[in-house]
Amino acid sequence: MTRVEIVCVGTELLSGKVNTHMAFLAPCLQGLGLRIGRESSVGDSIGEIRAAVGEAFARADVVLVTGGLGPTFDDLTREGTAEALGLRLTYRPQIFESIRRRFLRYGRTVPEENKRQAHVIEGATVLRNRVGSAPGQRVVRSGKAVFLLPGPPAEMQPMMREHVVPYLRRTYSNGQAAAKTILRLSGVSESAADERLDPLYRSAGRRGVEFTILSEPGLVHLHITAVAGSRREAERRVAAAAAAARRRVGEWVFGVDDDTLESVAGARLARRGWTLAVAESCTGGLLSRRLTKVAGASKYYLGGVVCYSDGSKVRELGVSRDTLHRSGAVSPACAREMAEGARERWGSDCAVSITGIAGPGGGTKAKPVGLTYFACARRGAATKVLRVHLPGDRDAVQQRATGVALALLLRSL
Amino acid sequence: MTRVEIVCVGTELLSGKVNTHMAFLAPCLQGLGLRIGRESSVGDSIGEIRAAVGEAFARADVVLVTGGLGPTFDDLTREGTAEALGLRLTYRPQIFESIRRRFLRYGRTVPEENKRQAHVIEGATVLRNRVGSAPGQRVVRSGKAVFLLPGPPAEMQPMMREHVVPYLRRTYSNGQAAAKTILRLSGVSESAADERLDPLYRSAGRRGVEFTILSEPGLVHLHITAVAGSRREAERRVAAAAAAARRRVGEWVFGVDDDTLESVAGARLARRGWTLAVAESCTGGLLSRRLTKVAGASKYYLGGVVCYSDGSKVRELGVSRDTLHRSGAVSPACAREMAEGARERWGSDCAVSITGIAGPGGGTKAKPVGLTYFACARRGAATKVLRVHLPGDRDAVQQRATGVALALLLRSL
Repeated sequence: MTRVEIVCVGTELLSGKVNTHMAFLAPCLQGLGLRIGRESSVGDSIGEIRAAVGEAFARADVVLVTGGLGPTFDDLTREGTAEALGLRLTYRPQIFESIRRRFLRYGRTVPEENKRQAHVIEGATVLRNRVGSAPGQRVVRSGKAVFLLPGPPAEMQPMMREHVVPYLRRTYSNGQAAAKTILRLSGVSESAADERLDPLYRSAGRRGVEFTILSEPGLVHLHITAVAGSRREAERRVAAAAAAARRRVGEWVFGVDDDTLESVAGARLARRGWTLAVAESCTGGLLSRRLTKVAGASKYYLGGVVCYSDGSKVRELGVSRDTLHRSGAVSPACAREMAEGARERWGSDCAVSITGIAGPGGGTKAKPVGLTYFACARRGAATKVLRVHLPGDRDAVQQRATGVALALLLRSL
Repeated sequence: MTRVEIVCVGTELLSGKVNTHMAFLAPCLQGLGLRIGRESSVGDSIGEIRAAVGEAFARADVVLVTGGLGPTFDDLTREGTAEALGLRLTYRPQIFESIRRRFLRYGRTVPEENKRQAHVIEGATVLRNRVGSAPGQRVVRSGKAVFLLPGPPAEMQPMMREHVVPYLRRTYSNGQAAAKTILRLSGVSESAADERLDPLYRSAGRRGVEFTILSEPGLVHLHITAVAGSRREAERRVAAAAAAARRRVGEWVFGVDDDTLESVAGARLARRGWTLAVAESCTGGLLSRRLTKVAGASKYYLGGVVCYSDGSKVRELGVSRDTLHRSGAVSPACAREMAEGARERWGSDCAVSITGIAGPGGGTKAKPVGLTYFACARRGAATKVLRVHLPGDRDAVQQRATGVALALLLRSL
């Protein structure tokens, strides 16, 4: 089986910055039926990069090197990799020219330093970076492939999809084909989903599939992969395993593959021709932010209000002073009035509200940190109100709360 | 300088689970003046563990191995490390007895499987785990130390503090102490800051400090570290280097260490007793989200409006229909009216607005994707309006735009 190794370059990765590359790369590579043998992180030092890339190259069939392709003195992946492979770097003026044009487009003069980014390992194929100035490189030597990719995920990920995955599929699939799907769940804990799925894990080998369960606050992702003699067979196995998994945890599945709660909700709104407005308190704009991460959200999303103060809940959403006085801002009545007020005020078909205590301060015995109320008001149905006590610190409570709100919206569509 | 390597064991780390160990371990080790040379992650395989630990042991003075100390068949760190060091594993009945008593305390019978956890590398010192059943181990060989620590952070972190840090301080600190600071910059590109700082990099060795420059959309971070014979001397060197760096790039420095644009803006607002409201269009709530990530933001942040539609800009912010008709929503006039409207409507001392084209759709020749206008209206000064053409994809434009807005706000405070 083809062995891939990942070498991540960047002093920050050894200084406490969390490396999130594997969360993207692992599913990508597994989807091709390739095995990841090792991940290594080294700092911005030629010697360390040379050693790590050289050792990975000796053990693996494919080496992905991320980071260290910027224009500055401590971007040394080009040099370190060239030394590891015993190859020279050559300057390609046409690359610098395209970087210069890129700067010009944004009205800026390109610094001399960016010439470093125009150095290419001899024999390398240059991989276009549509998002940033650092081009990638692919070097093939002794029948093995080494890829240099930029460190910022916003640049690395599209380049991986456009340049690396197609090449690996062509070169290493070997008559073997892989298939993959991800079931996206919300409203269930990882351990509860795990327990329900346990019998499937036990029969995974017999079914010729592999299951990996991953989680983030409020969401559980079940990855199902298969490698078989044909794409059709691999897809058949994955589909059968996904159907078996849905029989066990289907009630929590909201989407598959690249779906997110916000993209699924958006697609359903667009399909109905409905519009949405939101009213948030403790999540401070994160719900609106998630909805507008989806390109084309302006088709259904009108906007919303972040009411971080009591006064603004009254003024902007028409929450009654009486409700605030009697029940407080963190109450089912306030959540209901926020959602209904937003819907009326913004003239939308649907509106969702969140009000709660994100912490760390502001909690009481009766209303502890994490207590959150949600409401969804929609055309042609009674307003739904939901109470959830969310675990975690401020950021986790805010993240989970927006997940609960989106799940509530989904159930209303 | 003492070299430490980290080997993380666990198939999940190569399957997409994010490895957060470094966020804890790096500051721990840097605080002792130790240098982390490499981090490697391998799966639950004896061969992979043996190779990774053996190679790390050959290069480093200290190796920390995390994970793979559980009771199940795929917990193989004990075996792999013993093989790497050419040592045997011996069974220690007293360890199993203490695990048995631990289970008993929670009213459970200990499974036979847990006997695996009572196997210790010959000559190792056993490190007590107060949180879980897996004891740690410390093996000293050829003057080098190898530590085995459990994978769950809740177990690893206290064991690191109680057993590993004191040992390392005693054995390797050598009277050496470390100091560190980070200068946070905005409004400058990484390459431009780099060019200005270049002379400092050249003299870094002579000054006894190390510089690392890192960036994310709209921000540049300059890390300055020093190791010296005393904490005082290390701190003096870092302070001198930071002062020298400020002489070169001080105009862009907005904060230090854990400061963010939003935390610095919040602190300044709180100090003045001022309040803030926002009006966002293309950033869809992200500006508000960033402001409310800061705990205690409710002291100065009143809230804001996300106006994703033209109608809502008129209704919620009082933007004139005439402006929208003549100049469009992405215009200096609209940005100004949004900020002034938000300030008036919310009764705040300050208000910031953003209106632009985040893409991927919606761009024209005259108003391309990334074109963004900002305004800051504040008590006692004329409203400032800013035009910036931001590079990158939708998410990058949104991230950068909120950074520009926060920097504009900072300059007004």
